[in-house]
Amino acid sequence: MEQVHFVKAADYCKKTDYKSMAGQIVKLHGAVTKIRKMRGFAFVLLRTVDGVEQCLWDEESNFLLETLCEEACIAADALVVAEPRAKGGYEMHLIKVTVLSKPAAELPFQVGNKEINTSFENMFDYRPLSLRNERERAVFRIQSCLCRAFRSFLEQQGFTEIHTPKLVSEGAEGGANIFKLDYFGRQAYLAQSPQFYKQMMVGVFERVYEIGPVFRAEKHDTSRHLNEYTGVDFEMGYIQSFEEIMAMETGMIAYAMEMLKKSVPDELELLKVCIPKVLDIPTVRFQDAKELVAEKYKRKIADKEDFEPEEERLLCELIQEQTGCEFVFVTHYPSAKRPFYAMETPGNPTETQSFDLLFRGLEVTTGGQRIHDYTAQVEKMERRNINKESFESYLMMHKYGMPPHGGLGLGLERFTARLLGRENVRQATLFPRDIHRLTP
Amino acid sequence: MEQVHFVKAADYCKKTDYKSMAGQIVKLHGAVTKIRKMRGFAFVLLRTVDGVEQCLWDEESNFLLETLCEEACIAADALVVAEPRAKGGYEMHLIKVTVLSKPAAELPFQVGNKEINTSFENMFDYRPLSLRNERERAVFRIQSCLCRAFRSFLEQQGFTEIHTPKLVSEGAEGGANIFKLDYFGRQAYLAQSPQFYKQMMVGVFERVYEIGPVFRAEKHDTSRHLNEYTGVDFEMGYIQSFEEIMAMETGMIAYAMEMLKKSVPDELELLKVCIPKVLDIPTVRFQDAKELVAEKYKRKIADKEDFEPEEERLLCELIQEQTGCEFVFVTHYPSAKRPFYAMETPGNPTETQSFDLLFRGLEVTTGGQRIHDYTAQVEKMERRNINKESFESYLMMHKYGMPPHGGLGLGLERFTARLLGRENVRQATLFPRDIHRLTP
Repeated sequence: MEQVHFVKAADYCKKTDYKSMAGQIVKLHGAVTKIRKMRGFAFVLLRTVDGVEQCLWDEESNFLLETLCEEACIAADALVVAEPRAKGGYEMHLIKVTVLSKPAAELPFQVGNKEINTSFENMFDYRPLSLRNERERAVFRIQSCLCRAFRSFLEQQGFTEIHTPKLVSEGAEGGANIFKLDYFGRQAYLAQSPQFYKQMMVGVFERVYEIGPVFRAEKHDTSRHLNEYTGVDFEMGYIQSFEEIMAMETGMIAYAMEMLKKSVPDELELLKVCIPKVLDIPTVRFQDAKELVAEKYKRKIADKEDFEPEEERLLCELIQEQTGCEFVFVTHYPSAKRPFYAMETPGNPTETQSFDLLFRGLEVTTGGQRIHDYTAQVEKMERRNINKESFESYLMMHKYGMPPHGGLGLGLERFTARLLGRENVRQATLFPRDIHRLTP
Repeated sequence: MEQVHFVKAADYCKKTDYKSMAGQIVKLHGAVTKIRKMRGFAFVLLRTVDGVEQCLWDEESNFLLETLCEEACIAADALVVAEPRAKGGYEMHLIKVTVLSKPAAELPFQVGNKEINTSFENMFDYRPLSLRNERERAVFRIQSCLCRAFRSFLEQQGFTEIHTPKLVSEGAEGGANIFKLDYFGRQAYLAQSPQFYKQMMVGVFERVYEIGPVFRAEKHDTSRHLNEYTGVDFEMGYIQSFEEIMAMETGMIAYAMEMLKKSVPDELELLKVCIPKVLDIPTVRFQDAKELVAEKYKRKIADKEDFEPEEERLLCELIQEQTGCEFVFVTHYPSAKRPFYAMETPGNPTETQSFDLLFRGLEVTTGGQRIHDYTAQVEKMERRNINKESFESYLMMHKYGMPPHGGLGLGLERFTARLLGRENVRQATLFPRDIHRLTP
């Protein structure tokens, strides 16, 4: 029997500080993302775990430039040379390389250019390749940092991470927008959100969160819909009002913006990301918001119970003009458009203790206080002709006691897209799923 | 327009140090989990966000004890009194309470006892309730800490978190054990693992990980199978051998054990968890392992290509006897039992560069090096009569160049169950899914 060498946790992952290593020979590895031939020398751009390193090949390198090609994976010895004119203040002079692998076919488009020059469809048909582009991958480095920040903040606030089932017997939203499947002879559904389970877990841990996939069988084919997306969900007990949930979200997003600046400054710079200010997010009631927009933009109110996408956009424009803030909380949505578990506003059952967060023209979060009283919940279900037997295990928590509670769901891809100024939510999704796309 | 109060990130979530607050009146809230009446006073156990607080009701409390009942949610003012005989060195004297909610029905079993006294089936039929038990919830506090530790370690090693689709056009394992569903008129499947996607992402980030749900339509009804579980998956590029993956896993688990000791000592104590030593995990080749077990326990080898569960158990017993280690890496599994992307052992195509990690008698991880060369992968698929057109987007990464790479998948619930000495993997699952169970 042998034994395995043991890897210790490093200090927090930092990019290697090559600048301080001038004069040393270092080992590096990565994929050749671009070769720029010059007279007598060449720049070889190497995609590494950290970013893109500019390496120099010249006649002193102990190999032929023809050994390399784009998307070849190599290991190399290189001399670090101080070079004030280079980005980062150093250059890597390639001494020798080992080619670990080479592509088997010519690339359909250049990956190593600043931007990929191909159609929107190709970007997704060739996703394993297009993601190798420096700017494309920066999107998901930022997204990964967002998740780290959300988790870190929530854990500091006493939230416990949970993993809830995605195969369920009833959808949280109901309706037609739910994927169905056969589960050993029974009808099962794919969870439209962890709603029921995170509420149950408030009875256990008081504060819980989950970042995981949610599924919507919506036939919408728009720039803001996905059929599978990543939900950032949290739920908290012992609240006195739904404003506490909004305050928690404000804190979470503000914390994330600070972490981005510290952890992924190169990616923010590369994508010219404009980090929004998050303090003091204005709130406006749904009815008032509808009227504000109608008045200011001389529009008729067509749908009294919901926003049209254009109204969300205009509301954000208006709020930013008036307050300078790129976020707005819209509160007290009509009961008719909120699910059966939404708590109604005391004294006005046509409104709910709920909110959406709009960010740069788009709804990125839906949240609110939930009904915690068993009798009140059963009554509301009866009013809506919902068969309460189907929700027996959901109602169990109310029956055996629940604190006042509420929470929210934030769409990770939508939030990322808005943050990075990408028009289409697919651009902030590694492998988007829509009505047309199931591969790659 | 109003504005929302802003929540700042706290220091890392710590349990409140009530002991140092003796003499002060504090506000606390939670659910009454047990009332123990004594002569002239009563202990009221309160389930809070941190744990269970023992509170004292007596005649000086400004409310009747009858105001309370089990699973009532309350807010209270309490005087902290130093009491060396109490756990934690203090007692909470209840001064006044506000009842926020009360259960609507009598509980089917006692939640506040040390252990819930009910059937195995009831534990899961009444999951929203049974999880409120202090020991039950400690399981998932520990599980949540495991995830935090795995993520923290991997991020320190340069891994980027990814979110890959669960709706897929082809399964990574293939076979009959896959859930099918209709996706807008096309056949889709639920991902059996993020295998293909994490490999693609190695071409982008070099090192990636994901913690998310995986789905297996297996009809097994055993103590170690679930139809939906949480996969801890990582994948890393530029490896020289699969032993690097094993070393990374060893480091990850060792790091997690240390974090558990620091972050959830109360839960470990409550469940009397025996934290294993993780250094120097022995490795044994599959063939040798089969023979060792056959020889030592006088067993015939029935299946030459796979372990029987009893063999896994015996191997662990044997290894622990010989080395004191509760883990063992079994390497070089037969090609016949490994998927089409497994790299074969140079010079011996009947074996693969793969491993399983066994822990206290059970396989908790499967991993290995993958084929990165396009031609080699296509040839192996042809040998296995796999239609390579179905895997076009998977093969795209090989075609356009991939570094040598490999990774693993660890079953979070299995690992937790082994760690906590729970016989059945369901006991380490919030809401288990098996052939019989789709609710709660």
